[in-house]
Amino acid sequence: MSDIRPSVTGFNAELGIQIEEWEPGRCVMLLPIQQRHLNRAGVVHGGVLSTLIDAVSSHAGNYGSDPATRPRAVTVSLTVQFMGQARDGTLRIVGTRTGGGKRLFFARGEIFDESGGMVACGDITGRLFSA
Amino acid sequence: MSDIRPSVTGFNAELGIQIEEWEPGRCVMLLPIQQRHLNRAGVVHGGVLSTLIDAVSSHAGNYGSDPATRPRAVTVSLTVQFMGQARDGTLRIVGTRTGGGKRLFFARGEIFDESGGMVACGDITGRLFSA
Amino acid sequence: MSDIRPSVTGFNAELGIQIEEWEPGRCVMLLPIQQRHLNRAGVVHGGVLSTLIDAVSSHAGNYGSDPATRPRAVTVSLTVQFMGQARDGTLRIVGTRTGGGKRLFFARGEIFDESGGMVACGDITGRLFSA
Amino acid sequence: MSDIRPSVTGFNAELGIQIEEWEPGRCVMLLPIQQRHLNRAGVVHGGVLSTLIDAVSSHAGNYGSDPATRPRAVTVSLTVQFMGQARDGTLRIVGTRTGGGKRLFFARGEIFDESGGMVACGDITGRLFSA
Repeated sequence: MSDIRPSVTGFNAELGIQIEEWEPGRCVMLLPIQQRHLNRAGVVHGGVLSTLIDAVSSHAGNYGSDPATRPRAVTVSLTVQFMGQARDGTLRIVGTRTGGGKRLFFARGEIFDESGGMVACGDITGRLFSA
Repeated sequence: MSDIRPSVTGFNAELGIQIEEWEPGRCVMLLPIQQRHLNRAGVVHGGVLSTLIDAVSSHAGNYGSDPATRPRAVTVSLTVQFMGQARDGTLRIVGTRTGGGKRLFFARGEIFDESGGMVACGDITGRLFSA
Repeated sequence: MSDIRPSVTGFNAELGIQIEEWEPGRCVMLLPIQQRHLNRAGVVHGGVLSTLIDAVSSHAGNYGSDPATRPRAVTVSLTVQFMGQARDGTLRIVGTRTGGGKRLFFARGEIFDESGGMVACGDITGRLFSA
Repeated sequence: MSDIRPSVTGFNAELGIQIEEWEPGRCVMLLPIQQRHLNRAGVVHGGVLSTLIDAVSSHAGNYGSDPATRPRAVTVSLTVQFMGQARDGTLRIVGTRTGGGKRLFFARGEIFDESGGMVACGDITGRLFSA
């Protein structure tokens, strides 16, 4: 791994997601909660949490720190369970590849608040396209 | 319904979601696609689509045009299938309540591009809290 | 379509599932509820309902009335929402293909009781293998 | 725990599911694969796997070895990812409660073949009713 931390792009960057660790089959991301992430009840919007599950799972299942050569992956389906709520602090999101092969992969994401409580978890099925 | 179109709040507003129609059991939203909604492949990020499914389904299952008196609802689980991709134009998102009672509800969302093709669909389970 | 109604095989047949209608993109199945389909609460087990969603959606997305030449399809992911309960009578299950291409397809299933109430609904992502 | 191993009932028993371990928040089940569990491709039907995920997750989230006093639980939603296939031997199914409270719970199930490979995994949201 180089000195340069891999960075997210597009909507992931727009949200403020940061990559903390990334290796084949596993990725850890951070999201410092901002006011704009919240819903009208003052907790992080389910759409933000869903984006985190999608992003971390996709990275876990499709490693490649160089965006130029990383294979293209498309999320085919996503599921999320929301068992907690977060209002502030930094979310820690852990993604793990759970299975698959050259064309499809399965990965899981779990989101934790600063006290270690699980806020949400979910799974994606992803499709890989060779370069 | 008053002359004033109900408006979204919080992260839904941050994304640029607009309410086009809203009645008990049904909601239609619009999202004019912006550059910041895209992922590195140049198509709308799955997290944005997931947010749309969550938002429209939650509105369909929990009607109340006055944010001050609308009951509080929490999404318990979300599923999304991504069968298409969108790059530009305005997305149309249709939500329908599919079942439930006073404490839990089920609702479905479908996202269409400008040509009427389905980009994604999904379902939520929501929990209602009386005021 | 021939005079001979297509029949289910394997575990679908073991459960007692019948094909009522089947054309490309759509399938209707019936399940006369039996005592062995119930759980300890006396209602149809969620696993039976999940099997119905899987079966009808898979048939809707992979038409072929001749089992010998029908392409092989594998369900990749399944989601089910349980909004009702059924105790007796015959369940009617309607499957519709919602999208996809030559390698992946998306389909939805809905289960109705005899009074037309929705008991459960769900979606699958399926993978097709050319013969 | 008494000397008597808790037994499954209803459709779970019909399928041949056995409880191997059961404590609050966790359950392990076994299913010796039988010919009738297979689909036309000769592998365990997705509906059987979905039933296993539902059963083990429901048990993990709603402990009570005495069927007479165990609270009633209803599965509200279910998701399953199918990453492997099983043809014979005995499936081992591990369920873990992942969150929730007095009225709703979240639990995950994972299904392994005899070589320890993951065949499927999934999550449920369940609703609890006090006795």
